[in-house]
Amino acid sequence: MMYRMEKDSVGELEIPVDSYYGVHSLRAKINFPITTQQLDPDFIVSLAQVKKATALANHKLGLLPEEKTKAIVQASDEIIAGQFHDSFIVDPIQGGAGTSSNMNVNEVITNRAIEILGGVKGDFSVIHPNDDVNKGQSTNDVYPTAGKLTMLKKIPLLEDELERLMDIFEVKAEEFKDILKLGRTQLSDAVPITLGQEFHAYYSVTKRNLRRLKDVRKEMEAINLGGTAIGTGITAHPDLSATVLPFLNMITDENLDITDDLVDGTQNIEQYVVLSDVLKSIAISLSKISNDIRLLSSGPNSGIGEIRIPARQNGSSIMPGKINPVIPEVMTQCSFVVMGNNAIIGAAAEAGQLELNAFEPVVFYKLIESFQVLTNGIGTFIDHCIAGIEANEEKCFDNLERSTYLATVLSETVGYTKAAEIAKISLETGRTIREIAESEGIEVKSQESVRASIR
Amino acid sequence: MMYRMEKDSVGELEIPVDSYYGVHSLRAKINFPITTQQLDPDFIVSLAQVKKATALANHKLGLLPEEKTKAIVQASDEIIAGQFHDSFIVDPIQGGAGTSSNMNVNEVITNRAIEILGGVKGDFSVIHPNDDVNKGQSTNDVYPTAGKLTMLKKIPLLEDELERLMDIFEVKAEEFKDILKLGRTQLSDAVPITLGQEFHAYYSVTKRNLRRLKDVRKEMEAINLGGTAIGTGITAHPDLSATVLPFLNMITDENLDITDDLVDGTQNIEQYVVLSDVLKSIAISLSKISNDIRLLSSGPNSGIGEIRIPARQNGSSIMPGKINPVIPEVMTQCSFVVMGNNAIIGAAAEAGQLELNAFEPVVFYKLIESFQVLTNGIGTFIDHCIAGIEANEEKCFDNLERSTYLATVLSETVGYTKAAEIAKISLETGRTIREIAESEGIEVKSQESVRASIR
Amino acid sequence: MMYRMEKDSVGELEIPVDSYYGVHSLRAKINFPITTQQLDPDFIVSLAQVKKATALANHKLGLLPEEKTKAIVQASDEIIAGQFHDSFIVDPIQGGAGTSSNMNVNEVITNRAIEILGGVKGDFSVIHPNDDVNKGQSTNDVYPTAGKLTMLKKIPLLEDELERLMDIFEVKAEEFKDILKLGRTQLSDAVPITLGQEFHAYYSVTKRNLRRLKDVRKEMEAINLGGTAIGTGITAHPDLSATVLPFLNMITDENLDITDDLVDGTQNIEQYVVLSDVLKSIAISLSKISNDIRLLSSGPNSGIGEIRIPARQNGSSIMPGKINPVIPEVMTQCSFVVMGNNAIIGAAAEAGQLELNAFEPVVFYKLIESFQVLTNGIGTFIDHCIAGIEANEEKCFDNLERSTYLATVLSETVGYTKAAEIAKISLETGRTIREIAESEGIEVKSQESVRASIR
Amino acid sequence: MMYRMEKDSVGELEIPVDSYYGVHSLRAKINFPITTQQLDPDFIVSLAQVKKATALANHKLGLLPEEKTKAIVQASDEIIAGQFHDSFIVDPIQGGAGTSSNMNVNEVITNRAIEILGGVKGDFSVIHPNDDVNKGQSTNDVYPTAGKLTMLKKIPLLEDELERLMDIFEVKAEEFKDILKLGRTQLSDAVPITLGQEFHAYYSVTKRNLRRLKDVRKEMEAINLGGTAIGTGITAHPDLSATVLPFLNMITDENLDITDDLVDGTQNIEQYVVLSDVLKSIAISLSKISNDIRLLSSGPNSGIGEIRIPARQNGSSIMPGKINPVIPEVMTQCSFVVMGNNAIIGAAAEAGQLELNAFEPVVFYKLIESFQVLTNGIGTFIDHCIAGIEANEEKCFDNLERSTYLATVLSETVGYTKAAEIAKISLETGRTIREIAESEGIEVKSQESVRASIR
Repeated sequence: MMYRMEKDSVGELEIPVDSYYGVHSLRAKINFPITTQQLDPDFIVSLAQVKKATALANHKLGLLPEEKTKAIVQASDEIIAGQFHDSFIVDPIQGGAGTSSNMNVNEVITNRAIEILGGVKGDFSVIHPNDDVNKGQSTNDVYPTAGKLTMLKKIPLLEDELERLMDIFEVKAEEFKDILKLGRTQLSDAVPITLGQEFHAYYSVTKRNLRRLKDVRKEMEAINLGGTAIGTGITAHPDLSATVLPFLNMITDENLDITDDLVDGTQNIEQYVVLSDVLKSIAISLSKISNDIRLLSSGPNSGIGEIRIPARQNGSSIMPGKINPVIPEVMTQCSFVVMGNNAIIGAAAEAGQLELNAFEPVVFYKLIESFQVLTNGIGTFIDHCIAGIEANEEKCFDNLERSTYLATVLSETVGYTKAAEIAKISLETGRTIREIAESEGIEVKSQESVRASIR
Repeated sequence: MMYRMEKDSVGELEIPVDSYYGVHSLRAKINFPITTQQLDPDFIVSLAQVKKATALANHKLGLLPEEKTKAIVQASDEIIAGQFHDSFIVDPIQGGAGTSSNMNVNEVITNRAIEILGGVKGDFSVIHPNDDVNKGQSTNDVYPTAGKLTMLKKIPLLEDELERLMDIFEVKAEEFKDILKLGRTQLSDAVPITLGQEFHAYYSVTKRNLRRLKDVRKEMEAINLGGTAIGTGITAHPDLSATVLPFLNMITDENLDITDDLVDGTQNIEQYVVLSDVLKSIAISLSKISNDIRLLSSGPNSGIGEIRIPARQNGSSIMPGKINPVIPEVMTQCSFVVMGNNAIIGAAAEAGQLELNAFEPVVFYKLIESFQVLTNGIGTFIDHCIAGIEANEEKCFDNLERSTYLATVLSETVGYTKAAEIAKISLETGRTIREIAESEGIEVKSQESVRASIR
Repeated sequence: MMYRMEKDSVGELEIPVDSYYGVHSLRAKINFPITTQQLDPDFIVSLAQVKKATALANHKLGLLPEEKTKAIVQASDEIIAGQFHDSFIVDPIQGGAGTSSNMNVNEVITNRAIEILGGVKGDFSVIHPNDDVNKGQSTNDVYPTAGKLTMLKKIPLLEDELERLMDIFEVKAEEFKDILKLGRTQLSDAVPITLGQEFHAYYSVTKRNLRRLKDVRKEMEAINLGGTAIGTGITAHPDLSATVLPFLNMITDENLDITDDLVDGTQNIEQYVVLSDVLKSIAISLSKISNDIRLLSSGPNSGIGEIRIPARQNGSSIMPGKINPVIPEVMTQCSFVVMGNNAIIGAAAEAGQLELNAFEPVVFYKLIESFQVLTNGIGTFIDHCIAGIEANEEKCFDNLERSTYLATVLSETVGYTKAAEIAKISLETGRTIREIAESEGIEVKSQESVRASIR
Repeated sequence: MMYRMEKDSVGELEIPVDSYYGVHSLRAKINFPITTQQLDPDFIVSLAQVKKATALANHKLGLLPEEKTKAIVQASDEIIAGQFHDSFIVDPIQGGAGTSSNMNVNEVITNRAIEILGGVKGDFSVIHPNDDVNKGQSTNDVYPTAGKLTMLKKIPLLEDELERLMDIFEVKAEEFKDILKLGRTQLSDAVPITLGQEFHAYYSVTKRNLRRLKDVRKEMEAINLGGTAIGTGITAHPDLSATVLPFLNMITDENLDITDDLVDGTQNIEQYVVLSDVLKSIAISLSKISNDIRLLSSGPNSGIGEIRIPARQNGSSIMPGKINPVIPEVMTQCSFVVMGNNAIIGAAAEAGQLELNAFEPVVFYKLIESFQVLTNGIGTFIDHCIAGIEANEEKCFDNLERSTYLATVLSETVGYTKAAEIAKISLETGRTIREIAESEGIEVKSQESVRASIR
């Protein structure tokens, strides 16, 4: 392979002659061989969007010549369109508070822009990664801004799945609204409810979580671009923030604003914790629902068995008929990931010191993972489980009939003491309340009339 | 001691004849010898407020006679005023989803009301703990409602401390606004900032957290009273929710509403997680600030030492002059408690099953602990640390002067290469940039002129 | 009230004239109004044991006169015997890395020793809290040593409960060894097992956890006494460690040793994390078992209902016969506390800096809470739940009979395809495999013959 | 593309005709589109090792003919050698307790074995994935066994790095053993220590963690192979466990044993939590050390600056000479990942129900990630940071000299009161103790003589 030599403060390094990345990216690749994963494509795009917007702003402020600006903008646009992503070689978990990611995008844009201008990659006299592409910027405002843009790209995908989930729960609530069944508290037989009411509760909590996700969006819309290294704007034009904002909003179609206090905006990253907390709230609710689905479909014969979930794959090679709740199980595992990642994100946010939090890379990496597994998990949960759930009406009827709830119904006519006596016989013999009552000539309300009384 | 006999489904139990609690409370005390702590007073008051409001509503609905109502209301008012709290003997961590706490308040109100009506404690023919005091209610709506009322009592105390904290940070930001000092990223010397800007960042993040706390209040204002056992309102008058709401709002001076979906409102408790998350966000920010205070005051001679915190107690018996940052240290520990409790609360919320979450007691217990340590921690943090912080201007001056930042200043006049050369000499010899530059006849900007350029 | 004046580096403070504590304790009480809890009695005793042992060692080294030594030893013994515990007024969560706890015990011993020698409390010319009682010591070796001694007192209590738990599981395994029932994987009907095998699995995991608890004991037996402030032994006699060790072992009846590297022993506290991790492993296993007990006893009629747990209190005021699994529920909540506290302890251990971890107080406080709720929780779990569990043999029989497992049995004689066909009919109609098979003239193995084949 | 049709209980699916995987793998791929990651290679190898061993055991028991056995063994060996890994298409996070991973290996081995025997992929009359390759096995014993084998492959890699780390700390301890410097407690100037003692403490804690890692190995050596679905060994030959064990030990060169209680061994997975806890202990210690390295190298001019870490990449494009502690920063982030994953693994272990824990897939996935980031993180920490650390002797000297510790030294000759007075002047004026003392004609010990007194 042919190489070009590039130099940084540490020394010289051979760079493959065709590569768009440069010495800083390669140095980082060597320094941080942690996850073997690549940067998230949305994050790469967000970095390029920031670079494009800042180039346009610097140009407008008279700091970047037309020709360079055009080349940088075109290179950025190509990255935004999905090109050159394989030139992003740095590990998502990295030291340096994101410097390596910032330098990777600076180098790729630079070399591509040089190419556009007819130069040779690595010839920074044409365009310079620091002086031109990173002009008026610092990792410490570029990287967080790109991070927020990334989350703003992830939120709608999750919102869409939550909306689909909400809708399917509503459909099921309607579908099951007349199916009377036993309600259970503390896993113990309690009092009647409809299957529709249970699914409506799932609808309601999902709706509430969706509202929280929409509300938390604003935490991601306040950016610190223009604050540079520590929020004082050192090396940036005083009007950079104000100038770059409309460009960035136009490019991203977002509704960003510059945060009131750029120093605060550089050192505090608890907003990501707050966002992660909303994901956690969703995860907690979904895990609870998944567990309910597993309980309600348990058996199918010797469990609760009041609903049937779609069979998605062989349950067992030796047991005909075994259907396992594989989709709710994977949903719960996704939830555990989100809950544990929340702890990582919180620890990293707490560990910031003075003017900067150096642990943002792991925050972004784990937040992106949380979005991914949660969004994907909900997708399969809807399509491969919830949408296909059917009521097992007979089992609903039987379980209710067999439960001690009928003692409560009975107590209205024969009194608590007599009802309790019958309940006791039922618990000891396994005979239903209705059987015992009728054998004693006592009439018991039908399930139909009980259903009629449920609001 | 004299005893009266009381009976439940398990059997008979001796109850001290003078005690207001009864068999259910004592049974619970035996069953749950977990923490040896008592119920939180605000929680006891909240339970009594619910009981009072429901008695008034039942009376209005024609279900509870005037005389009983008056006695129950008076007994409740006495508890609200702080009486009989020692009759609450159940452990805050309890099985049964709060049944024991609910029965404890039912029993105390009942026996006190019997007393008011001239009866003998334990004579439930006068007033009955279940039929009268718990009329139309279930633990499953009373207990969560009292839990939310409790949190609504805790929130303002924390808000007050956060407001005080915000104010003192603002005062300090103003006080220190002209003190130029070194900004640090990744614990490394970076570029100038004012001490005022640093304190303003603390102000800004505190303000943001206070806003979050105010916003989260609404999560606590939607109650499920009237839903009874599983949200279907079984055993309650159909108009109970609507009737009790204005009474409860009047009694508590809150702005409560009945939740849209009572079934959801009974089985899902992720709202407490969301509230706990806000406390966690506050904790994370405060721990970061505390760590900054410890770093900035470190030394005092051989650390950063740019601020002086008030000496609050002897640092060491053998080292004259040792001042330890004991208050920031305790603030950080409070933060760790809040962060870990958040994990407990999340786990408990996730573990709900079907119509009920049986783990609410530990959620309330730990959430109350989080409020307590956070509110108390901030109080001492303000009064015994932040308010007394002084700038060490000389150290601020020296540290900045000694830092390599001056190379950056210098580079504006002599160019990057020459500046880098001087920086290298400085790093190797420990001489300041200014010394080296001046020895070479190069003029360097004064700190005054640097400060003037900081926005 | 009468006061004496005492002075520290901050200034003078009025101390109630009769109090054994002094200015440092009171100062700490003012500085750290966090939990409103008191120090754990075992921890107070451990502190006094350290003080007694060090006094004896200092005496042997010729550094403390006979008369003072005797008075300090007597005062320590009184505290060890449970006296003067109300003179320990500092909050368990405190800044200063435990200095306040150390000074509290220094002051109480001093004033009691002065009293013993006929002096007036506060007259430190008789005995001095720092020069005599704290001689050759620092908070930084005293406090961790007392912490480890405390945990060594807590471990046996938990071991005892784990042994009792193991034993009762073994008894139940034997009692239920012939009860054939349905085994379930993923909450789905699977293949036969005996109830005894299930309880034996609970026995096995408990035994394994007990072994871990015994193994982890050694982490608590390496102390850093004699290392003083940072492990270099500054201010202590060079032979102090070697001299104090046999005294402390004799006093505590422990098997302590001085850690190899006193600097490490002062700055690293991950041993407490390792201990807490064992508690967490116990908690995780117990929560799983509790959940199993809740599942197996669920219903009782319309759930799994294969075991009956003792009714411990009324389940419901309106539903005769409702038995809630209140004891397993509280066990699970105890487990959540232990799991969350583990996060607190880990965060605090991670936050140590340089020569000391200043966050040990919260580590001790939460570790002690974890021991308490876990030990207490297991106690009630054994006595009020496990010991009284009965098998519901009929339900075990029915559930197995009704399950699709019989298809597997059948497949041995009629082949997989025919068996699968019958299973399908069973799932669709709810009729049992046996019913369908017999209606088709196919013979099915009895449960007795299935049981015979289970190992 | 050409397809073959394969069928499972759900229906038919087109399988690319050349693919080694089959319908079950593809079904899983569709069901679980969660992480987009692949199974870990060591895990794939472990699965193949289990399959090979069981084929040999089944053959020895007379259950699998020679020809089939040879083909299965050869196919397994090829996978063990690294072939066909791209045929493993299932997501590591999956429902079904690992069934999909087990079926994926069954299918790949089957089709490769068919090929070896000259058959056509998909023609299961030659070799059958369930009847032959999965003979006498269940996912529920294969998957955990492969999981433990995987961890046994990961442990030595981490051990190697920990040993390297221990060694380099020991080297540094020796290298720095004569460099006297200031020790700090609570970030405050305390008393002298040598830099060597500090690095020796890092050595000691690393050694202790290595010992824990070696000890925990045994938790992974007890396997449940032969227990099949729920530990009762259903469908397996009674002698399978005993027969397969020596084969598996020979193939893997491990020291495995069959667990005492196979029912327990199938349902409880807290061993992975215990293993993860050891990783957490390592992570906590390493994060503390990393933070120390960052503190000690902070500045370099206006921080503590007592050590110099290797410059690994440009610190800043605008500040000549800025060296950021990027490697310790990435080490800390790795630690946060391990700590958060520990929470995920704990939650999953706690969530097991009855005869099985369905959440093992996420346990394995996250445990493998923890091993990876920790092992990789330590590698770069050693090579790119610790090995290159140099002492800044001048700064060590200056910081000590400037600290108030000299007051303590002084107090030995002039008494505490006079020394305290001088310390006060020093703190107020910033002049050193030595300067003030000497200006008053008082002699102060040299650092050399202080060092001589340090043990």
